[in-house]
Amino acid sequence: MSIKEKEIQEGLSRRDLIIGAGKAAAGAAILSLGALSGVKTAEAYEVASKFKYAKLDPQEVGQLAYEHYFKRWCASTVLTGLVEPLKKKVGGAWKDFPIDAYRWAHGGFAGWGALCGTLTGAGIVIGLVTNDTEIAEAMTNDLAFFYAYNELPKFTPSKIIKAEIKHMTIAGTPVCHISVGRWMRAEGVGFLTNERAERCARLAADIAMETAKMLNAWVDGKYKPKHQPLYNVVANGITSQNNCRDCHGQYVPTPNETYETLEK
Amino acid sequence: MSIKEKEIQEGLSRRDLIIGAGKAAAGAAILSLGALSGVKTAEAYEVASKFKYAKLDPQEVGQLAYEHYFKRWCASTVLTGLVEPLKKKVGGAWKDFPIDAYRWAHGGFAGWGALCGTLTGAGIVIGLVTNDTEIAEAMTNDLAFFYAYNELPKFTPSKIIKAEIKHMTIAGTPVCHISVGRWMRAEGVGFLTNERAERCARLAADIAMETAKMLNAWVDGKYKPKHQPLYNVVANGITSQNNCRDCHGQYVPTPNETYETLEK
Repeated sequence: MSIKEKEIQEGLSRRDLIIGAGKAAAGAAILSLGALSGVKTAEAYEVASKFKYAKLDPQEVGQLAYEHYFKRWCASTVLTGLVEPLKKKVGGAWKDFPIDAYRWAHGGFAGWGALCGTLTGAGIVIGLVTNDTEIAEAMTNDLAFFYAYNELPKFTPSKIIKAEIKHMTIAGTPVCHISVGRWMRAEGVGFLTNERAERCARLAADIAMETAKMLNAWVDGKYKPKHQPLYNVVANGITSQNNCRDCHGQYVPTPNETYETLEK
Repeated sequence: MSIKEKEIQEGLSRRDLIIGAGKAAAGAAILSLGALSGVKTAEAYEVASKFKYAKLDPQEVGQLAYEHYFKRWCASTVLTGLVEPLKKKVGGAWKDFPIDAYRWAHGGFAGWGALCGTLTGAGIVIGLVTNDTEIAEAMTNDLAFFYAYNELPKFTPSKIIKAEIKHMTIAGTPVCHISVGRWMRAEGVGFLTNERAERCARLAADIAMETAKMLNAWVDGKYKPKHQPLYNVVANGITSQNNCRDCHGQYVPTPNETYETLEK
């Protein structure tokens, strides 16, 4: 079976292949793109369209996410920031949306420290309103880049609820444990402190606001992906970022190398 | 502010405090439990109850999740396994449930390798039907333990779709990159192979089946959490598992030590 056939079987979309192949230019042949069908027809997407979007005020979204964090935690508070205004402005399917049914996503999945719950909360709204798996993919990817490679939190609450905090940090990853750990080290505080809670609340506001800004642009027909999709399955041979050395020591992989090579 | 007050402000539930304190017996005082209110009243939970559960056949759930993986990927295929039978058996709110609106959760969030998408898919159904944040927390926690500490995949398809595979591995974590990487190394294959796709499809079946089994027990009033919640914020001072040395080298933390100590 050719690489192209394998790609098709893996279900990668046309654009994913273009960009993914571009990223791995030195190591992988540029894949031709005929006969890539079936992926987007896998499901009747019109079912998603019951959740409509209307432009939101990012500042209001951020403030709501910030205020609700302290009782609802990361995932559900991002949902609060986005969904509460949508309940008012759009109504419809949003009226019955159970914001706290997603609280389990907090702390990287019930506290396991994996994916930051703010991204799960944001992804849920993005997936429900964009009604297109490729747009949702691009937007969640952009959001992960925003999360990982900006100094955060940058949200400034109109009235501080828990504590003054001094630091912004670059998480370098969407992984909760590392993200919050790096901030805690910079700030010099433990997890069960008002400062840490304040940081996660402001971070939730940042993620909710960035999501609102992207969706506002999208609903105006102006959303363009900022980053190439992180399908490093071609470049790195595995689902990953490109920060291999953060965990894999000093070894520098080249585009030709596979995960197995990396691990040896 | 006392530790207890801080815990309350962090929004930890009564049971979380009991068990969390128990886990950190050597290092933390057992917290008394008066006046812990407000957490479960943060949201009107009845809105979630539009999504009802009825006992499902785990084998059917697993087979559906397995078969749909190759086009829908990890998160949406677990949703398929659980939601398609619920659309038939229960109907109601499930009829409009947009299964593929959650595809962005694949590959640990749009391919970033963080939380395995099977767990996001399962968590969404658990959160929607259990209608109680504490039960959803316990169940997603049990599911993460199942995922991390069992040899998987163990699902045996009635008819193999992609490839024979030889290995089961213990992920040790719900993190996609590590989980799939460990399996790939054992099997000796790359990511873009039929074998890897087969593994993730079977793993999705396992997670969907385990979720159905837990929810079947719950709807019969027989679900009891198997594991203590992983609120290691008390024991480890951060959202985490207890496998610190996997990433933090040979340092052995004691219950009194905080994250900052661990990092020095």
